Amino acid sequence: MGKNEKTENKRITPEELKKFCVAAMLKCGMNEEASQIAADVLITTDAMGVHSHGTRSLRQYLKRMRAGGLDCKAVPEIIKQGGSWAMVDGHNALAMVTGHEAMEIAIDKAKTSGIAYVGVRNSCHFGAAGYYANMAAQADMIGIVMSNVDPNMTIPGTRGRGIGSNPLAYAVPTGKEPPVVFDIALSTVAAGKVDAARFEGKTIPSDWLVDLEGVVTTDPQLYPKNAALAPLGSHKGYGLALMVEIFSAVLSGAAALSGVKSWVLEDAGNPTFQGHGFIVINVADMMPIDSFKKRMDEMIREIKGLPKGKDSKGIFLPGEMEWQKRKETMEKGMQLPDEVLHNLKGLAEDVGLVFEEYLN
Amino acid sequence: MGKNEKTENKRITPEELKKFCVAAMLKCGMNEEASQIAADVLITTDAMGVHSHGTRSLRQYLKRMRAGGLDCKAVPEIIKQGGSWAMVDGHNALAMVTGHEAMEIAIDKAKTSGIAYVGVRNSCHFGAAGYYANMAAQADMIGIVMSNVDPNMTIPGTRGRGIGSNPLAYAVPTGKEPPVVFDIALSTVAAGKVDAARFEGKTIPSDWLVDLEGVVTTDPQLYPKNAALAPLGSHKGYGLALMVEIFSAVLSGAAALSGVKSWVLEDAGNPTFQGHGFIVINVADMMPIDSFKKRMDEMIREIKGLPKGKDSKGIFLPGEMEWQKRKETMEKGMQLPDEVLHNLKGLAEDVGLVFEEYLN
Repeated sequence: MGKNEKTENKRITPEELKKFCVAAMLKCGMNEEASQIAADVLITTDAMGVHSHGTRSLRQYLKRMRAGGLDCKAVPEIIKQGGSWAMVDGHNALAMVTGHEAMEIAIDKAKTSGIAYVGVRNSCHFGAAGYYANMAAQADMIGIVMSNVDPNMTIPGTRGRGIGSNPLAYAVPTGKEPPVVFDIALSTVAAGKVDAARFEGKTIPSDWLVDLEGVVTTDPQLYPKNAALAPLGSHKGYGLALMVEIFSAVLSGAAALSGVKSWVLEDAGNPTFQGHGFIVINVADMMPIDSFKKRMDEMIREIKGLPKGKDSKGIFLPGEMEWQKRKETMEKGMQLPDEVLHNLKGLAEDVGLVFEEYLN
Repeated sequence: MGKNEKTENKRITPEELKKFCVAAMLKCGMNEEASQIAADVLITTDAMGVHSHGTRSLRQYLKRMRAGGLDCKAVPEIIKQGGSWAMVDGHNALAMVTGHEAMEIAIDKAKTSGIAYVGVRNSCHFGAAGYYANMAAQADMIGIVMSNVDPNMTIPGTRGRGIGSNPLAYAVPTGKEPPVVFDIALSTVAAGKVDAARFEGKTIPSDWLVDLEGVVTTDPQLYPKNAALAPLGSHKGYGLALMVEIFSAVLSGAAALSGVKSWVLEDAGNPTFQGHGFIVINVADMMPIDSFKKRMDEMIREIKGLPKGKDSKGIFLPGEMEWQKRKETMEKGMQLPDEVLHNLKGLAEDVGLVFEEYLN
């Protein structure tokens, strides 16, 4: 059995994976604190089973860093603020560091003002929006998180790529039930799912992609160069993506639409100019937090108690399956998909580390 | 030619329609100011061509008022507030009055705090959420408006009606371009469209409704008693509807899920206990308003200038078609759909008015 096969069959713990990711970031010139923060964002995402947005992407992020498109020494900075809002310049730091800092600022502002907005410019792909939203929920607040991405989605009536599939996430604290954490792309499916189908050589349903004339296609190989994502429910997903664009870019001073560059396809030496938007509500300012949590639990239990449909695979709250997966990961470690392992090993080679040395 | 046919073929001006609606509300015991406000909400909606949410519903609202489910004398009241937020009790006033008042409070709060949240309890169906969002845009602010409605939509994995199709709207000020105004239900289509198909005796696409076992159906006659709306993109629409439920009901103290009663189907003598949520951002606090508007215009023009797709029917921003319709209405009046005229005439009979006397 070769070394390769052995690694693929093994369960990896979050701690092992974190040590490797931190080591890779340190190798690229980041400091310990920033590396720890970014690793936690990515590994928590993997631990929840959302491998499309976890450590899979670290190789590409660090490729950008070594090429100059991200700045390993940059520290995100508040450039303008009021009592209930702030504008943050990411200065092209690794976007997990910027996203984490921006959400901490939003939580701090909401503590004194009840509700806060933080806009971010000069950022990049920040992984799973739901991670940052959940930071608010862990602080007993409601968080909404938005980001624009490079145009990868068709706008109804046009051909080609006009707007990003712009993630939208929210998280809400609960009592005895797991926090509600919702995180979607505003395309029918996230680009990561198309990537996964392409990697696995599968065909895809006909409402995932349109070709360059705006005609539906089931071939994931066309994406991203010769196809665009289809917006969720056509004009509805388009309008929601536009909302995200406005909150994360027009208001924050970031680049919008074609001004945003792809963190995957375009020159790794140049910034992507992405923006993010964060809204946080401090529930306790408006209602006793225990009453709110009780109301959330009641709503959740009503949903869980609904009669099941024909062929039901269960009734789930947003984030519930991810919390279950995280619990399993904490107990037994996780088996990373081939593509993630492939990327992690490639990253190790890129930065002069041996991936297997980090596994017990 | 009978009186009926004559009316149906005639264009009606917003002024004529407003006089009639105000007269009907006065007849039910409302005061002049509240009647004017509510009439403006409904008639502006008709003027924009959104007849599913305009004066079509006034007959039912006033039926509720005469039966006691709405209170003609009620005045919405702030029951708790901070610098950047307020909780409003609608006291079962006509919900257009409550929605208008709540948005005015949110705009006032945002003027001093930059961002504000207003939650509303003890309200009812408030018409088009986009009307209130546009109030913020007209004040050079960004508005988000949400409302829960009685459960009319299936939650994935369940059968029957678990959550409302909960409207979500936003509006954003612009420079030379028309304001962006987006207003959707989080079902594949709004209930009003199913109602219209039922009224016209048409079949519907298979992703609009599910029957009581959770199986798709193309028969709008099953709705609302024996079918539920399908959520937009399944789990995505469900999660977004849940967000609306949280902002408009769990946080505001309104009823949630099955606690919300139908303003159409259930006893008109009892309140519906609906809630609304409003978020307003005062752009000028964060960025010079002219810079923001220029950035919006640039984004809009980039979208309008995209290459058209095969079989394109045009490229539209959210609200653009409605602004065009409004302009046409202001110039030439509007031809109301049969169902709207039917309801207006029924309303006239209900309250002892002659509809035709209000038309020039």
